[in-house]
Amino acid sequence: MKKVKIALLGLGNVGTGVCKILNTNKEEIRNRAGYDIEIAKILVRDVNKKRDVNVPEGVITASPEEILDDESIKIVVEVMGGTDPAKDYMIRAMKAKKHVVTANKLAIATLGDELIGTAKEEGVMLKYEASVAGGIPIIDTINESLTANKIKEIVGIINGTTNYILTKMYLENMDFETALKEAQEMGYAEADPTSDVEGYDAVYKLGILTSLAFGTKVDSDLIYREGISNIKSIDIEYAKEFGYVIKLLAIVKEIDNVLELRVHPTMISTRHPLANVNDSFNAVLLKGNAVGDLMLYGRGAGDLPTGSAVVGDIISILKDNMEIKNEVNKIELSAKQINNMENTESQYYIRATVKDVPGVLGEISAILGNNNVSVLSVIQKSKGQEFVTIVFVTHKTLEGNINKSISAIEQLSSVQKIENVIRVENGIK
Amino acid sequence: MKKVKIALLGLGNVGTGVCKILNTNKEEIRNRAGYDIEIAKILVRDVNKKRDVNVPEGVITASPEEILDDESIKIVVEVMGGTDPAKDYMIRAMKAKKHVVTANKLAIATLGDELIGTAKEEGVMLKYEASVAGGIPIIDTINESLTANKIKEIVGIINGTTNYILTKMYLENMDFETALKEAQEMGYAEADPTSDVEGYDAVYKLGILTSLAFGTKVDSDLIYREGISNIKSIDIEYAKEFGYVIKLLAIVKEIDNVLELRVHPTMISTRHPLANVNDSFNAVLLKGNAVGDLMLYGRGAGDLPTGSAVVGDIISILKDNMEIKNEVNKIELSAKQINNMENTESQYYIRATVKDVPGVLGEISAILGNNNVSVLSVIQKSKGQEFVTIVFVTHKTLEGNINKSISAIEQLSSVQKIENVIRVENGIK
Repeated sequence: MKKVKIALLGLGNVGTGVCKILNTNKEEIRNRAGYDIEIAKILVRDVNKKRDVNVPEGVITASPEEILDDESIKIVVEVMGGTDPAKDYMIRAMKAKKHVVTANKLAIATLGDELIGTAKEEGVMLKYEASVAGGIPIIDTINESLTANKIKEIVGIINGTTNYILTKMYLENMDFETALKEAQEMGYAEADPTSDVEGYDAVYKLGILTSLAFGTKVDSDLIYREGISNIKSIDIEYAKEFGYVIKLLAIVKEIDNVLELRVHPTMISTRHPLANVNDSFNAVLLKGNAVGDLMLYGRGAGDLPTGSAVVGDIISILKDNMEIKNEVNKIELSAKQINNMENTESQYYIRATVKDVPGVLGEISAILGNNNVSVLSVIQKSKGQEFVTIVFVTHKTLEGNINKSISAIEQLSSVQKIENVIRVENGIK
Repeated sequence: MKKVKIALLGLGNVGTGVCKILNTNKEEIRNRAGYDIEIAKILVRDVNKKRDVNVPEGVITASPEEILDDESIKIVVEVMGGTDPAKDYMIRAMKAKKHVVTANKLAIATLGDELIGTAKEEGVMLKYEASVAGGIPIIDTINESLTANKIKEIVGIINGTTNYILTKMYLENMDFETALKEAQEMGYAEADPTSDVEGYDAVYKLGILTSLAFGTKVDSDLIYREGISNIKSIDIEYAKEFGYVIKLLAIVKEIDNVLELRVHPTMISTRHPLANVNDSFNAVLLKGNAVGDLMLYGRGAGDLPTGSAVVGDIISILKDNMEIKNEVNKIELSAKQINNMENTESQYYIRATVKDVPGVLGEISAILGNNNVSVLSVIQKSKGQEFVTIVFVTHKTLEGNINKSISAIEQLSSVQKIENVIRVENGIK
């Protein structure tokens, strides 16, 4: 059996998972890869830290040069995260003709151009299946399996932390703060949960998926982003009343050569294929012009699921015999126009606190009507208090019409506050 | 741009889909494959038949030799179905150093050994993504994406016809015969529906998935098989009452190196990930020891979804530059022991017609207890008639215990008939 030496940059959660898998499934991996894999070096910050896995003497190092300058190491696995120094190490590894596997969504989303460009220049392979949706092979599916298709649309639940929180809010009637605290205790959310909760993490992943599926470079800053911290228990209650569930969706659609890109909490029917994706599970629903609707569902994070994707990438490089090749068909990424949110079509849920006086429903309805917003349902439950909650669900309309309506409704003296506006999607079919 | 000539064997539903996709997505396919694909020949039985697609003059032929003996044709796409003469043509094509793509589950399930053996001997590629679950890339996922895993279990809805029928029975309260008739009118079921309805189709597909996921050769005749023709509307009603839905599941699990293989109608919780797979959709749920639970959901049949898988295979061969290679690591398939159904563990739903006399419930319960079958729920609704329906759902037990119980219960003078026994699965978690 041929042998190959690899090195890990990082030995955190994912790195530990990679070690465990290479150890536990040694026999199967050797058969499938055609190589005996030896982890020759692992770069860490603190060589004295106690680790969850047994690593032979001399493997742990704090010196990147021991890896990057070692010609016998053929594959570098970057599982340290962040862009600095991860990007620099990856570039140096590729320039030294090493193949690179990374789980780093931030680096791929923000510096993917440069990284992929270097891989092409050097003729090495750069694989990043683990960077989106953990163990779900969404990148292989787009790159390898759906190649016969024009992909028209992707709708995904690609952040496990927010999905865990929303599931707790929906199924166990927790409020946002309690659910977030529980997610933090379970290790699903970080001490500073901003990246997950405010949708940044999903935006990066959506950018990666979009560049692969639509062959276009996407600037993450241009993706519309809205987190879940404004979702209240009362919104969940109304969602249930309307037969909806609330999910943080990452959406990209191509309409007349314009890309519509957005990450925001969304009400979807309880019968939508994504409605039953609960807890920290992820799922991605794609629409291809040949395959139709295709959904992948699984673990979006965790040491072993993410490690599964990383090790799958290593095996894929080995099955290709680590060939250094100059790509014959370089596909240039074309820049596509990104839709202005004002032109996005959706249904909307609007929750407002209003004075319980006659005529308020009529005033609001008139404003909506004047802005071409047609109302599907309205719920107002008066209890003889000064202020009451009124909730509208609209038919499909342009976001611009909603924004104009909201501005006008906020001016009404009978309206205390527009509490929330949440998009409602019927999903791809 | 490099050019390649391919040929189709067959121009039915799937062949037509392949032509449409190669035509509609020409530009994307050319970029991804690195080749201009020309359909040089299409083998049909009747050259004068009117076709759904426009085919250039001289392409349609009734002579297999025009394809198999033409050295300029590099890839043969077998979409004629059946084993004879499809198998012979595929073998001849591979011996002539042509790569082969097939959608033929019957040929792969029953003659896969010989076909795959020939491909290895000749160093050509044989691809069959379309043979299981149509457009769902389940074979790529097992072969390429989950290579880091030991797969422990697969549970699939892999027959669209029966899923359509069961969906109609469940959601629209149709009886089996009406739903079957509608499926036939919709083109989902054939005039002779035996292969679908009695589970043979699912058995073939399960055999293919098992051989890939567990590295073992499976004789389809040894797979336990039970169709859906005995599912009555009353069983659906009781399923609803217990919070279950009935699906035709194809199941393989590895337990202590023994494979448990079976295809049968199964009651699963309405909250099971497969419960919402409706109409003619397919879904496959896998459990890997690294990735955990992973589900793929999509179109299991149809010209374009199946064509998506076929054309994906063609592109994959072209991305590999049609290299003729002698596989370095031939993995020998090991024969694994197959579990006797008597030793299978499951919960069971038992529906019986009994005389409405005192003591019958006690008699049946005593028999179940004596055979180590413990009862989870029982429903008996007496209406003062001579005969009543009694339904049991058991805790987990061995199938052998159920069989002994059923034999004994049938002997009771108070029992008119055991009407149905359906397995109940809680699913993988």
